Amino acid sequence: MNKTDFAADNGLFHRRAFLKGGLVATGALTFSSVAADERKAWMRQPGLGMEGYSQRSRFEADIVRQGIGGQAGTTGAGASRTPLEHLQGTITPSALHFERHHSGVPDIDPSQHSLIVHGAVKQPLKFSLEALDRYPHVTRQCFIECSGNSAALLAPDPRDASVSEIHGLISQSEWTGVPIRLLLEEAGLAEDAAWVVAEGADAARLNRSVPLEKIMDDALIALYQNGERIRPQQGYPMRLLLPGYEGNMSVKWLHRLQVSNQPALSRQETSKYTDVYANGKAEVFTFPMAIKSVITSPSPGLKLTDKGLYEIRGLAWSGNGSVRRVEVSADGGRTWADAQIDGPILDKSAVRFRLPWQWSGKPTQLMSRAHDESGRQPTRDEILELKRSRFFYHYNAIQAWQVGADGGFTNVYA
Amino acid sequence: MNKTDFAADNGLFHRRAFLKGGLVATGALTFSSVAADERKAWMRQPGLGMEGYSQRSRFEADIVRQGIGGQAGTTGAGASRTPLEHLQGTITPSALHFERHHSGVPDIDPSQHSLIVHGAVKQPLKFSLEALDRYPHVTRQCFIECSGNSAALLAPDPRDASVSEIHGLISQSEWTGVPIRLLLEEAGLAEDAAWVVAEGADAARLNRSVPLEKIMDDALIALYQNGERIRPQQGYPMRLLLPGYEGNMSVKWLHRLQVSNQPALSRQETSKYTDVYANGKAEVFTFPMAIKSVITSPSPGLKLTDKGLYEIRGLAWSGNGSVRRVEVSADGGRTWADAQIDGPILDKSAVRFRLPWQWSGKPTQLMSRAHDESGRQPTRDEILELKRSRFFYHYNAIQAWQVGADGGFTNVYA
Repeated sequence: MNKTDFAADNGLFHRRAFLKGGLVATGALTFSSVAADERKAWMRQPGLGMEGYSQRSRFEADIVRQGIGGQAGTTGAGASRTPLEHLQGTITPSALHFERHHSGVPDIDPSQHSLIVHGAVKQPLKFSLEALDRYPHVTRQCFIECSGNSAALLAPDPRDASVSEIHGLISQSEWTGVPIRLLLEEAGLAEDAAWVVAEGADAARLNRSVPLEKIMDDALIALYQNGERIRPQQGYPMRLLLPGYEGNMSVKWLHRLQVSNQPALSRQETSKYTDVYANGKAEVFTFPMAIKSVITSPSPGLKLTDKGLYEIRGLAWSGNGSVRRVEVSADGGRTWADAQIDGPILDKSAVRFRLPWQWSGKPTQLMSRAHDESGRQPTRDEILELKRSRFFYHYNAIQAWQVGADGGFTNVYA
Repeated sequence: MNKTDFAADNGLFHRRAFLKGGLVATGALTFSSVAADERKAWMRQPGLGMEGYSQRSRFEADIVRQGIGGQAGTTGAGASRTPLEHLQGTITPSALHFERHHSGVPDIDPSQHSLIVHGAVKQPLKFSLEALDRYPHVTRQCFIECSGNSAALLAPDPRDASVSEIHGLISQSEWTGVPIRLLLEEAGLAEDAAWVVAEGADAARLNRSVPLEKIMDDALIALYQNGERIRPQQGYPMRLLLPGYEGNMSVKWLHRLQVSNQPALSRQETSKYTDVYANGKAEVFTFPMAIKSVITSPSPGLKLTDKGLYEIRGLAWSGNGSVRRVEVSADGGRTWADAQIDGPILDKSAVRFRLPWQWSGKPTQLMSRAHDESGRQPTRDEILELKRSRFFYHYNAIQAWQVGADGGFTNVYA
C-alpha cells in the first residue's frame, strides 16, 4: 500500500483508498462447498406466519436502553439511554428512544386529551386530536438531546462508562405534526405576545417557556414518530417539538400552550439551569444544543478481535443548523482525516459519519470532532476554560476513546 | 376568499393561501377555562417507569397489518399489508412493514448464519456477521414494493377495498449495510461474470437473478433497518437490498450470492412473471418499479365528519429515480394542482405529498398523479391499453377515490 492511501496517521484511510478493493479480507474465510449450509433447521422446515404487529428477533433481546436510573423517592422519574453502540444509521427505533421523565409515563386516553391555546391571544381555542389531524402537517427528521447529556465527562477523573452511558441522551426520529404557527394565527396573537409557555399533562406538569420567534419558525405539535402515532414514552398523543433546542423544552404529553409577554421562569428555568461563564457572566437561557459528535463504534464494551481493518462510525449533530464536516483522529488528536458523511445532511438532524481504519494492534486514542456553521466542536480543556463555574448542562466537547493492546476501549480525557 | 386562493377547482388550495392564516377553524372549539383538564387521572398520579424496550400505547392496538392472507396448503406463505391510511411521514415502522413470505419467517440464529460468495469468482468467500460488520457501511432510505402491489385494480369491476388492501405492499425504511461491490471486488470477478443469483435461507430458498451492473451500482447487504438489526420479517440477520427493484429480488435471509454468466431462470423468473404487451412483445424481466402515487388519507375506511378544510396526503415513489412532481385533483381529473412534497427528495425513495382541500359536502373524486425523470404516472386506461395481455405485475396507474355525500370513500375506476 502506498503512503498516499492514508488520510492521516495511524491507519486512517481515505475512503477512496479502501474502495480500490482487494486490500484486506477482514475475517472472510475461503471455502469450497455450500452443502453445510443446507442442513440448517430453518432451511428444512417452514417458518412462522404473518403477524399484525411484529417484534424483533429473540436473538436481539439484549439490546435495551442503558443506564436506567430512577430518582430516589419518586415513581417513574428518571432517565434511560439509547444504546448507541449497538445501533446504526440515523433513526433511533422508537422502542429505544432515550427517556427523561419527571413523574413517569402517563397512560393518556387520546379521546380525553386536547390541546388548549390561551393567554395573550384574541380567541382561546381547544383542539382535539381529530381537529389537529385536519390541519396541514409537516414531516421532518431531527434529533432530541437532553441538556444534561454527556455531563458525566465533568467528573474530575474519567469514569469507566460506555458511549450510551455517557452520551445516550440523544435520539433521532422522523416526526410528523402541525406547525404551531397555524394554530396561533387562528387564535390571533395579542400585541404584547412574546413567549409561549408549554405544559405537559403528566403529574409533574413540566413546563417550559419558548420564545415566540422559535414557535413561529419551526415548532410542531408532533403527532407521529417514525411513521406511527408517537409512543407514550415520547409524549403520546402529542408533544411539542422544538428542533435543535434542549430536550425538555420539547414538552411531552402537551396539553396547554399559554401565550405570554414574558417567560414563566418555571422550575427548569431557575439558576440551577443557567450556564455561568468563568468571567462571571451568565446565560439566563441556553436553548440550542451546540455542535457535537461521538464515535459510537468501536467504543467501550465492543472489542477489536484482531488487528486489521475496521470502520470507525459515529453520530454528529448541531442544534444551531447543520453539520458541515466531521474529522477523525486515530492518534489522540495529532493528525486528523475527514470522515465520510452519509447524506442527506438535514437541518438540526444527526448524521452518520464513517472512516475505514487499519488497527496496528497497538494502544492509541480515537477521537472525532464536528463542525457546523458556527465553528468547531471544542476540546474538553476549551469548554472547561470557557464555562468553569457551576457548569453542568450543554457539555459538547470532543470524546476520546483509548484502545488498549487487548482491543478493548475505555473513556479517557485527552 | 379570493378566487386566486385556489390552485384548482373544487376546493384545492394553494398551500400559500392556507398559510395566510385565519381561514378556517377546523374543529377548534372556543373555551374559557383550563380547570377541567386538571382533574384527569394522568395529571394526578405518577406514571409508569423506564423500560428497556418499550411498546406503543394500548390505545393504538387496532393499527395492524391489513389483508393478511395465507396460501392454501402452505405454512407461513402469503402476504400482509402496511396500514397506509393510518401512517404519516415516510418511514414505515418495522413492526408494520409489509410481508411476503414463500415459506414463512425463519428463526435464524445469527451466530450460525453466514453469507457465501461463489460461482464465477477467483476466490469463493464466506462472511460471518462479525466479518461483514468490519466492512464499510452505507446508510440510505428507500422503499420496497412487491411487484404484485395494486394488482387488485385489474379486476373488471372496482373492489370495495381500502388503500392498504389495494396498495399496502409498499413500505419504506432507513437501511444500513455493506455495498456488495466491496465483497465481489475482494472475491475477484471472473471474465464472464454478468449476473448474481441471490438465495434466501428460508425453507422456500427463494432465489432471483440480478444483473451484475445493478449489484456493482447500489446493491447492499442490509444488516440494519430503521436503526436496529433488521427484523425477522424483513430478512434477519441480512437481506439483499436492491433500491427501486421489484420487492422479491431483495432476497430476505440472504445466505448465498452465486456469480454467473447468465440468469438462473428460477421459479420467479418464468413466463408467469413476464410482462406481455398488447402488441405481443414481452419483457423477459421488469426490474424497476415505475413511478406511482396514491392518496392515503382521506381514503376508504376514513370519513369526513363535516364539510370544510382537510389535508389531502399521500405517498409517491419511483424505482427509476426520484419523484419530480405530484399533482392532485379534487374533481375527478378535470383540473389539477401541484401538491407540496416534504423534503428531502431522495433517490428511489417514497416522499410524502400534501395539499389543503376544502370539501363542499358534495360527492366528487380525489386522484393523484406523480412524475419522475421518465414521465407521468399513467391512467388505468393507458396501462391497460399498453399491457393488455396476461398482465398482472407492475400495475402503477392513477387511483381514484370517490367521496360520497356522507363523507365516506370508495375505490372507483375513473
